[in-house]
Amino acid sequence: MKSSQIKVSDIGEKGLIERIIERSKTCSACGVNSMDHKGAVLDFATSIGDDSALTDIRIDDNSYLVSSSDMLIESSHFPYEMSYFQMGYKSVVVNVSDLASMGADNIGFLLNMAIPKDMLLEDFDDLICGVIRACDNYDIPLIGGDTNQANEIILSGTAIGQVHKDKALMKYGFEVGDLVCISGELGLAALGFELLNLKQILNNNLFEMVDIEEKIKKAYEIDSTLCDMAIFKALKPEAKYGEGHILRDCNNNENRVSATDITDGIASEFYEILNSDKSHFLFDNEENERTYAKGIRIYEDKLPVEDEFKQIANVLGIDYLDLFLHVGEDFELVFTINKELKEQLSSDMNFYVIGEITDNDTVEMVLSNGDMEKISPRGYQHLE
Amino acid sequence: MKSSQIKVSDIGEKGLIERIIERSKTCSACGVNSMDHKGAVLDFATSIGDDSALTDIRIDDNSYLVSSSDMLIESSHFPYEMSYFQMGYKSVVVNVSDLASMGADNIGFLLNMAIPKDMLLEDFDDLICGVIRACDNYDIPLIGGDTNQANEIILSGTAIGQVHKDKALMKYGFEVGDLVCISGELGLAALGFELLNLKQILNNNLFEMVDIEEKIKKAYEIDSTLCDMAIFKALKPEAKYGEGHILRDCNNNENRVSATDITDGIASEFYEILNSDKSHFLFDNEENERTYAKGIRIYEDKLPVEDEFKQIANVLGIDYLDLFLHVGEDFELVFTINKELKEQLSSDMNFYVIGEITDNDTVEMVLSNGDMEKISPRGYQHLE
Repeated sequence: MKSSQIKVSDIGEKGLIERIIERSKTCSACGVNSMDHKGAVLDFATSIGDDSALTDIRIDDNSYLVSSSDMLIESSHFPYEMSYFQMGYKSVVVNVSDLASMGADNIGFLLNMAIPKDMLLEDFDDLICGVIRACDNYDIPLIGGDTNQANEIILSGTAIGQVHKDKALMKYGFEVGDLVCISGELGLAALGFELLNLKQILNNNLFEMVDIEEKIKKAYEIDSTLCDMAIFKALKPEAKYGEGHILRDCNNNENRVSATDITDGIASEFYEILNSDKSHFLFDNEENERTYAKGIRIYEDKLPVEDEFKQIANVLGIDYLDLFLHVGEDFELVFTINKELKEQLSSDMNFYVIGEITDNDTVEMVLSNGDMEKISPRGYQHLE
Repeated sequence: MKSSQIKVSDIGEKGLIERIIERSKTCSACGVNSMDHKGAVLDFATSIGDDSALTDIRIDDNSYLVSSSDMLIESSHFPYEMSYFQMGYKSVVVNVSDLASMGADNIGFLLNMAIPKDMLLEDFDDLICGVIRACDNYDIPLIGGDTNQANEIILSGTAIGQVHKDKALMKYGFEVGDLVCISGELGLAALGFELLNLKQILNNNLFEMVDIEEKIKKAYEIDSTLCDMAIFKALKPEAKYGEGHILRDCNNNENRVSATDITDGIASEFYEILNSDKSHFLFDNEENERTYAKGIRIYEDKLPVEDEFKQIANVLGIDYLDLFLHVGEDFELVFTINKELKEQLSSDMNFYVIGEITDNDTVEMVLSNGDMEKISPRGYQHLE
């Protein structure tokens, strides 16, 4: 049998797990040599093949254990043209992103996967390579997990970390006048998903082919680099791990930082941020619900959006603000800081101030023409 | 709309998560009031709705962080007649069992789930009730997770705990002459799965109906209580959490304990135990592979198997030893102890000594007729 025709069912569950362990030690195919890393793999070696992973880590009185778990399902989360490597990579990113947005330091990553039994072994290897490369990039050892069989690829990850109690970046904890910021451009991944969807329809010869071909052509004519970047961001997102740490280090007695990562669209995150702050306020103060009235105002003119982005959205027949506000998957951080922190933070990381915390109990945007518009919370939700 | 007709898609992902959080606090339907419990829920309250769960726990120099992650998929892991409650319950048990077999104390449980969009809300509630009841029984707070959509139910859990470094129950660490023990009867769950399979075939009117009806009838005539117990063990397994702690506490300077839980059949675990011990031996000693020669011998006459169990297996056309050795899913512990520990341990927990560690590099059984038989490693593997 040619090696390219070997299926995962030819080597079975235990063979696959051995393959993962072997590759997680030294994976030259992935450009990774985990043995170089701070002893994490050696700690893991104590418990390789045992019932649970043992990690030699200290968590003291001043720190929280931080854990987050997210599942990716092929039919929902992996767009057209996503490679097996990118699927594996993304399974780490979505979980590390949740830790990054708390300002946590990574401890370990566990991955449960289900794959079809006729998956080619070389595709499985690519997927694992993606997982290991991401673990290496984010300095989080792969410490456990299992493999199962299903009709589609399912990657369920858990990231474990720790953070100093006083420095954890919560969704809550801001005051009226604090600045609302994002760690990078938003809407790129959303645009990438749109372009990939169109390519898929085109490739499947479904309908309206000429029209769609024309749309894609026009988009690339406007700015082919931007189109490629958008697709790349949809296929291989990154977590803002370093930025999370910078923000955490600023969260001290003198300054005030809250943060979350943008997975379902920033509009939906705005509502979550306010809800979280409100719950925390009521929990601490036992006051009437109506006494809480914080809101968020952003400004269209402050959004980091290139003209070409707007033009491309336009030829695709989409409101660019929809891409910016309501889609997500960029894994950028949205965070608030007290005004005084702005200058100091500017020297440490790139970010955009797009608005501020208000006292008027609403989420709104000042449009370029001066009009005020309420922002609705709709973001992407599963099971709708 | 009648409440019994509401589907999960009618309330969406965020509504479901709120429902889980609400129920995890006080679930009278599940007979659980988590608020009574040692502050775990209050710790969780700090981070409810945030990106990650924050847990206020100390792990000192003398302890390991223990983590384990296991995925259950409807078509593979949930037998016929399993209720939604039992599915949820099992998702906790399989993960707690991995912690129990290391002797770890539970810290927290995360659950990623995927469910069909047309699942009834009352079935979803039953599933969550099962999760919460199990978390309550095993004293492990539900601290995080997410919900997704798929064609079948997928429950991917992660259990986090901690254990004293010197007391962790590894698969390795036994000497020739140590006793091989199990924490309870084996094969019951396997028999339950067989009976449930037959019932399913019968119910689906597939084939050989008269023959199958006759087999089930005969099995129940031999011992209906045993048949019911077997089915119950297949549908609602329990983890040996308390037993894991008792064994851990015995693992000290004077005594020697190794342990693992039986998920894929004890025969397959025997080979894993020996492999683990061999790897550890080679890792520590840098010796030639051939210098390691430990083996396991068990005795048919010492197996805790009732005559009725053998008779029922017989009318079903199965070798009872196959049920005992090669199926698993009982979640009992298989462990080794030094001989001197036997008497002390007997006063603390129920267990059966079924054999011993030998120096002859094989896994074998002394049959009742005096013959010696080699035990093959085949256990259940996915993706074969």
